Formats: sequence, C-alpha cells, structure tokens
Amino acid sequence: MAGAIRIIGIDPGLRRTGWAIIETLGNSLRFVAAGTVRSDEKTDLATRLCQLHDGLSGILHTHTPQEAAVEATFVNKDAAATLKLGQARGIAMLVPARAGLRVAEYAPNAVKKAVIGVGHGDKKQIHMMVKVLMPKAQFDTDDAADAIAIAICHAHHRQSVTSRLALETAK
Amino acid sequence: MAGAIRIIGIDPGLRRTGWAIIETLGNSLRFVAAGTVRSDEKTDLATRLCQLHDGLSGILHTHTPQEAAVEATFVNKDAAATLKLGQARGIAMLVPARAGLRVAEYAPNAVKKAVIGVGHGDKKQIHMMVKVLMPKAQFDTDDAADAIAIAICHAHHRQSVTSRLALETAK
Repeated sequence: MAGAIRIIGIDPGLRRTGWAIIETLGNSLRFVAAGTVRSDEKTDLATRLCQLHDGLSGILHTHTPQEAAVEATFVNKDAAATLKLGQARGIAMLVPARAGLRVAEYAPNAVKKAVIGVGHGDKKQIHMMVKVLMPKAQFDTDDAADAIAIAICHAHHRQSVTSRLALETAK
Repeated sequence: MAGAIRIIGIDPGLRRTGWAIIETLGNSLRFVAAGTVRSDEKTDLATRLCQLHDGLSGILHTHTPQEAAVEATFVNKDAAATLKLGQARGIAMLVPARAGLRVAEYAPNAVKKAVIGVGHGDKKQIHMMVKVLMPKAQFDTDDAADAIAIAICHAHHRQSVTSRLALETAK
C-alpha cells in the first residue's frame, strides 16, 4: 500500500521467536508475512542467541519494516524460564533497534484487548480474531500468530502515540 | 605474553555491565584492562540494549580476546529484575559469540571457588582475592571486579575443558 507503515511484531522466545509483518494505512490493515525463527536446542546458549539474531536480521533485511513491537511478557512461575525469555527478548529488541527502528513494548493484556476487545482470553480466541481481522493471515506456529496480534496492537496504538508526540512537539 | 590466551570476562547487568580482559599462559595470569559499560536509565529499553551492545563491541574490537566467559546468575527474588538481567545477559553472550569467540558460562559459586577457594563468600572477599591473584588489577566498579573474577575462573577451567576436548578428539 502506498503511504502505508510497515510493522514487525515479535513474540520472543529462546526456542521459538514468532514474527509477523503487517501494513497499516488509516484504519486498514494488510497481512504481509509471518513465521518462526527457531534456535537449535542441542547447541549452546550463545550460539542459539546468534541463531535468533541472524534469523531476525534476515527478516528485517527482506521485509524492511519501519516500526517494531515486542510483547512485554512476564513468567513469574520460574526464574530460569524468565532468564531464558529475557535473553531471547534482549535479542528481539536489539535487532530492530540497531536497524534504526523505534521499538514499542506492549503488555499481554494490551495485545489481547487490541484483538479480542477485552484484556483477557486464551490463545484460541486470539488466533480466531487474528483470522477475522486479517483473513489472509497465515502462520506456522502459535508464536507467529501471537506476533501478528502484537503487530495489530501496535497498528492500533501507534497513531495515538504519534499524535501525542506531534502535540508535544507543537507545544 | 607470547602464546598467551586472551580472555574477556563479563558480568552482565542492564544498568552496568562489568568487563575484564586478562591473559593466561600456563599457570600465570596477567591483567590487561577492566571497566564498566553503562546504559542510560532515562532512555528506552531497546536503546539501552544497543548501548550495551556497542560498548561491548568496542571493547572486543580494542582488546581482541580469544575466549569469553559470562556469569550465569539467577535472581530468584523478582521476576522483573530477572527479565532485565536476562535481556542484558543476552547481549553479553551475543556480542562475543558473533565475533566468533567460544562463550563459557560459570555459576556464581564456581567463580567464588576459583578466586576465594570456596563456593561462598561476599563481594569484599572476591575483590581482596582479585587483588592478591592479580596485584596490577584496576577496576572502577564492583561489576568490573566481578568480571575479573569470572575471567580468572575461566583461566582455571579452560585447560581442563581443552584437555578433555583434546582427549575426546584423540579417541
């Protein structure tokens, strides 16, 4: 779409990081691509982080998004799981930031609210609404579907952020 | 030192990441440099991760270490703190790995055992023993001192790892 803003949504995880590219122009949304970057569980952590880095870098290079959105997840149950997630999330934020993109963060309930309409709901409801909001969307994993939801959430919020920034600049 | 192996030790943290460069040849250790990479608390997370990335990349470029060691810390008390640490730690492992270095991980009690001789002890004991083992060591923060201890730990362990690998290759 001419004049459209291209967004990458990222759902970070050490084993699987979901990603989605969508375009937004006014109130319309268009699906571009989605998929999953995987790291090899049999190799060491540093190599796995490189695999996530290289995978995401390749997607940015191919699809050239202008803005990025990453889910701000907590895993309260388990410190080891939270540390792993944090490491993957560090890479998921670094790659677009180093490419010069602004990286927005959204809490899971904000993402749910953007796609389901309320701040709670299970994965099935999110996937169903992603299909309703974006009938052409295709995703290979739950993580890729979540990444689409994160990108949609950013498409809804970015205008209010942009207009707020514009107002502040105009003051 | 000719034939010496140059090691970077890293104590990751989002606000401050300590680093240290030492050389090891046989049983002798030599201090090269140590310091702290800081991120600006007033800016957003993605920018802060870029600052850690660029700071560590610069140190690798200047000091060209051949092996890296990073502390494997847990913060059990607080999921938000663990997530932050994880994000910084992801960058601390990614930078040397992308530069082609092998990245070893050591638990805090392994680091303490390497410098104090036992698996427990406070920061003061670690700093004192760093000064004993490496009288010329200079550090600007606790994190830099911890990074020296991590590098010393790797210097002690790397030979056993290398000889084990050599044995396995010889089989």
